[in-house]
Amino acid sequence: MTICSISTAPGIGAIAVVRVSGPDAFRIVGTLTSDAARFAELPANTAKLVALYDGDALVDQVVAVKYAAPHSYDGDDMVELSCHGSPYIQKRLLELLLQRGCRLADRGEFTLRAFMNGKMDLPQAEAVADLISSQSESAHRLAVRQLKGGFSRKIGELREEFVRLAALLELELDFSEEDVEFADRWQLRQLLAHLREEVQRLTRSFHTGNALKNGVPVAIVGQPNVGKSTLLNALLDDDRAIVSDIPGTTRDTVEETLLVDGTLFRFIDTAGLRASDDVIENSGIERTLRAAANADVIFYLVDAATATPDSVGAELATLRRVVPLDGKQVLLVVNKVDAAPAPVRLLPPEETVGEVRISAKGRQHLDGLRDTLTRYVAAHHVGDDTLLTNARHYDLMLKIGDDIDRVERGLTTGLPTDLVAEDVRGILDKLGQLTGAITTDDVLDTVFGKFCIGK
Amino acid sequence: MTICSISTAPGIGAIAVVRVSGPDAFRIVGTLTSDAARFAELPANTAKLVALYDGDALVDQVVAVKYAAPHSYDGDDMVELSCHGSPYIQKRLLELLLQRGCRLADRGEFTLRAFMNGKMDLPQAEAVADLISSQSESAHRLAVRQLKGGFSRKIGELREEFVRLAALLELELDFSEEDVEFADRWQLRQLLAHLREEVQRLTRSFHTGNALKNGVPVAIVGQPNVGKSTLLNALLDDDRAIVSDIPGTTRDTVEETLLVDGTLFRFIDTAGLRASDDVIENSGIERTLRAAANADVIFYLVDAATATPDSVGAELATLRRVVPLDGKQVLLVVNKVDAAPAPVRLLPPEETVGEVRISAKGRQHLDGLRDTLTRYVAAHHVGDDTLLTNARHYDLMLKIGDDIDRVERGLTTGLPTDLVAEDVRGILDKLGQLTGAITTDDVLDTVFGKFCIGK
Repeated sequence: MTICSISTAPGIGAIAVVRVSGPDAFRIVGTLTSDAARFAELPANTAKLVALYDGDALVDQVVAVKYAAPHSYDGDDMVELSCHGSPYIQKRLLELLLQRGCRLADRGEFTLRAFMNGKMDLPQAEAVADLISSQSESAHRLAVRQLKGGFSRKIGELREEFVRLAALLELELDFSEEDVEFADRWQLRQLLAHLREEVQRLTRSFHTGNALKNGVPVAIVGQPNVGKSTLLNALLDDDRAIVSDIPGTTRDTVEETLLVDGTLFRFIDTAGLRASDDVIENSGIERTLRAAANADVIFYLVDAATATPDSVGAELATLRRVVPLDGKQVLLVVNKVDAAPAPVRLLPPEETVGEVRISAKGRQHLDGLRDTLTRYVAAHHVGDDTLLTNARHYDLMLKIGDDIDRVERGLTTGLPTDLVAEDVRGILDKLGQLTGAITTDDVLDTVFGKFCIGK
Repeated sequence: MTICSISTAPGIGAIAVVRVSGPDAFRIVGTLTSDAARFAELPANTAKLVALYDGDALVDQVVAVKYAAPHSYDGDDMVELSCHGSPYIQKRLLELLLQRGCRLADRGEFTLRAFMNGKMDLPQAEAVADLISSQSESAHRLAVRQLKGGFSRKIGELREEFVRLAALLELELDFSEEDVEFADRWQLRQLLAHLREEVQRLTRSFHTGNALKNGVPVAIVGQPNVGKSTLLNALLDDDRAIVSDIPGTTRDTVEETLLVDGTLFRFIDTAGLRASDDVIENSGIERTLRAAANADVIFYLVDAATATPDSVGAELATLRRVVPLDGKQVLLVVNKVDAAPAPVRLLPPEETVGEVRISAKGRQHLDGLRDTLTRYVAAHHVGDDTLLTNARHYDLMLKIGDDIDRVERGLTTGLPTDLVAEDVRGILDKLGQLTGAITTDDVLDTVFGKFCIGK
């Protein structure tokens, strides 16, 4: 089936691109030109100015490029038409293509075809969607790396070794009456250990990968009236040019994002923490604690006028009791220093978190906060390691981890080969789902449903 | 100077196109590839998958097409890069191009260069902007016709004849002491008459051309509470799919638009007409009368329960007294017929406007209204005649009309040649401004300032 779609962003632009792909792509576009035979002779990969007609009426002069299968984005015959970017022309061209036998492409259908035609594996296809929606340098770099296929290659290699071992296990089943062991149990354990290591590393990397992709959560926490909202505004205002709202997300809370050194940070202003009998206020406090627990960076604010080493120690101890702070960058922020000088050091000696003194209202000394963010970026620099950024991959990794546990237990307890073989098949199946070697319609719907139209 | 720009609509899309144009376009884009020498050898008009780098970091894999001067849209060396449509990638590519020596293109700068390089004349360049902003078939057809250059050709031919005559007039001035007449006065009058005819026809066509381009105004008029707003909603609701708000206009009133047979109609719901002492209400009524005067179609609503032939006759007479209805399509709309049956014919026998009975609330019998609109489309079908759609052209045409008057008066009254010659030069100058043979920076700023970025 030949499909078509507008592939550029919706709205008015100087140019818009209409994509046509499928066995009839060349023929159908040819019927819109004044000379179908001549269009048929146009060589592939050649940009040509072509007039497109609806009967006698000129619809537009476009630049057409033919891409011949399999040397196209999706592996099928494709035509890309660069037309004038009027919504009317875009709509009219689509209508004409539909009249001549095209069908509107579904979300991600061109990439789906590329996957079906073996032009890319599933993580690469997923990386295309990530690449298009990347908002920051970090997210972009993660997507580019995944697009290169390193992730799938690693998984694919592991899978191949497993396939070999699984085949030997299956062979044992065929000879089950003879009680032979074709599959080297020691080698199987080695491989399992290797796989477990990789799975654990990737599973651990998901939190960071996901944060870099969608914005690193930063919670601004503290008692009421210490200036949390003022701090948020101060941080954003100073950098208004690169402030952005997260568009089109379904989150309930309105969060503000800020790009620092190419990494997107998501700031969550929270309800003030204090003991309260008010049910609504307590539910707000509960949300604050949840935000703090999910954050990678916590700015804990206190008021310079009222804070004492004792009160700070007590507050941090309380916070630590309800929110595990390990692995988080925590910063004690002493606010309102222009109004009242604070003691030299408010942090108890045993505290290892950093301390800065600022005036959020006066926008003074905010560098310390930015330093903390920059340090986060440096510490989580996207190096050469593969980071898990995709919830689908994460979910499969967790399940593979369970399967590995089961196989290892089975091997230790001397479970019959057929039961071990079943769990090994489970691992194989999930590794195949990761790379797309094994797919179901559900998986494809999920993966490609996230795409924009026209890709 | 080499310029660059994102040429597709802003936002996330599957693809975005970045344009680079100017003497260094090929070289600068080459520096972003891994092999500048190889990129330099890429033949023109050939689509090639190219990886673009920022140092070692892959920014994106794009499809690059080189267009060699003068065989490009703007007549300069150009490169079009089709990248993944992520706003981050688009921004990053622009930044890299700027770092390597490009400058951001101004609005319409590519088309300005096309004009400067003689690839198109000014009305054709203006047609490009119209084409991109066209919202309806009629507007699109007008733009396509102007893009073909028929308008300029006609003006150009007239101008050439004038240039010849003007030269003869100037020759007379050189020999002014000898009192000879090189320029045939009869021929000059002929030419003036011919030009006047054309100018008058085009000036008259501006109202229609402008309406077809921006939406044909339809005023819904009547006394208070006859159901005007309900009618508007009924008309729009039935066709919700093709209803659109006019975006980005600076009009004070909110108007609704509706596409009927490929023509855009702009509905103006008005304040009810009645004698009133209320200042504010009267100012509303004044606006109603202005809307009616500017409309091409008037739906005059009355209530079936209360309207009588006498009241209708009186109301239409009143309307006609304050608003000239000649040339307008007027329709008497008897509303609320489901609540109360109206007399067989409400219109006085001498009235020539049409009459339909509807229930706006019940959405009944709305076909008659649509018929009126369809009849308008048929009567104003954009045939082969050139219609004036551009305010700049209209303004020049009016001025040329004045100049012609002056020249003719001069010839009649036997004005000295030097004074006649000056007015003829005025005509020549304005004809030149029309086609862009004569331009000032102001004119170019006005024309190209209306473009979108990237065209």
